[in-house]
Amino acid sequence: MSDFFEDLVVGTRLDLGHHTFTAEEIVDFARRYDPQPFHLDEAAAASTPFGRLAASGWHTVAVWMRLYVEHRRAMAAALEARGEAASRPGPSPGFRSLKWRRPVHPGDTISYSSTLTAKHASQMAGWGLIFHRNAGVNQDGVTVCEFDGSVFWECRGAVAG
Amino acid sequence: MSDFFEDLVVGTRLDLGHHTFTAEEIVDFARRYDPQPFHLDEAAAASTPFGRLAASGWHTVAVWMRLYVEHRRAMAAALEARGEAASRPGPSPGFRSLKWRRPVHPGDTISYSSTLTAKHASQMAGWGLIFHRNAGVNQDGVTVCEFDGSVFWECRGAVAG
Repeated sequence: MSDFFEDLVVGTRLDLGHHTFTAEEIVDFARRYDPQPFHLDEAAAASTPFGRLAASGWHTVAVWMRLYVEHRRAMAAALEARGEAASRPGPSPGFRSLKWRRPVHPGDTISYSSTLTAKHASQMAGWGLIFHRNAGVNQDGVTVCEFDGSVFWECRGAVAG
Repeated sequence: MSDFFEDLVVGTRLDLGHHTFTAEEIVDFARRYDPQPFHLDEAAAASTPFGRLAASGWHTVAVWMRLYVEHRRAMAAALEARGEAASRPGPSPGFRSLKWRRPVHPGDTISYSSTLTAKHASQMAGWGLIFHRNAGVNQDGVTVCEFDGSVFWECRGAVAG
């Protein structure tokens, strides 16, 4: 079973694993990309709508991205270990409907998933376009973020010789 | 002129400044959050649809976020220097229609903007909800990314005493 565009089955749900956010990494991301008080400092966050230090929403979806890439890489390695070809990663044209539903605080463990919702032919020769619904759920079962993504996915016929 | 929810004028366009992406920072972001070959290594990128090392799309919008926060902080500092109150940052419920239209390669300089498209009352007491259309344009005038964001924005009456 390979993992080219033709092989993907709409409705498949991938569990991408989980990540526990620490105060240190929340502040590190915020210093680089989202230096707002509620992402930088526990005391400053107390008087904001978050009430406590909370991860940047961009941080929570960047971790989804890393786990998605790592999951795909592990799947490709398993295929190659069996002597089968694996599809190569492709670009993404973007996302829709990203919702940050609840804050992520230090110590929260977020479990990420990705469910294939649709696949279509694309204008890029040798590549299809897949759509997936992605989510992060905290240790209490509450969804903290969700979005609909899309990625160009290599077709079997496109494998370089 | 303060910058509370009541003061914001739909149609206002903010120039957030620009950022030149280096190979080093493209690879650094990719290692942390998007470790795909075309974001990690110039040679590996050559045989991918990007053709050259390209920034993670998440990186290109994370830089928008930083410039947006820095712009707002500078505006607040200017108000406070004149003895006027400034609104405090609020959370964002998410965004819609994020499009990565063109790759961002090392040496590309992206100019970012944010245009206020709508403002509505919100369910969070003391805070309105604003909508903005955001974009990054490269040194050739080509849009590389755009998305419709939303942020809770403090109302004048909500200022802590």
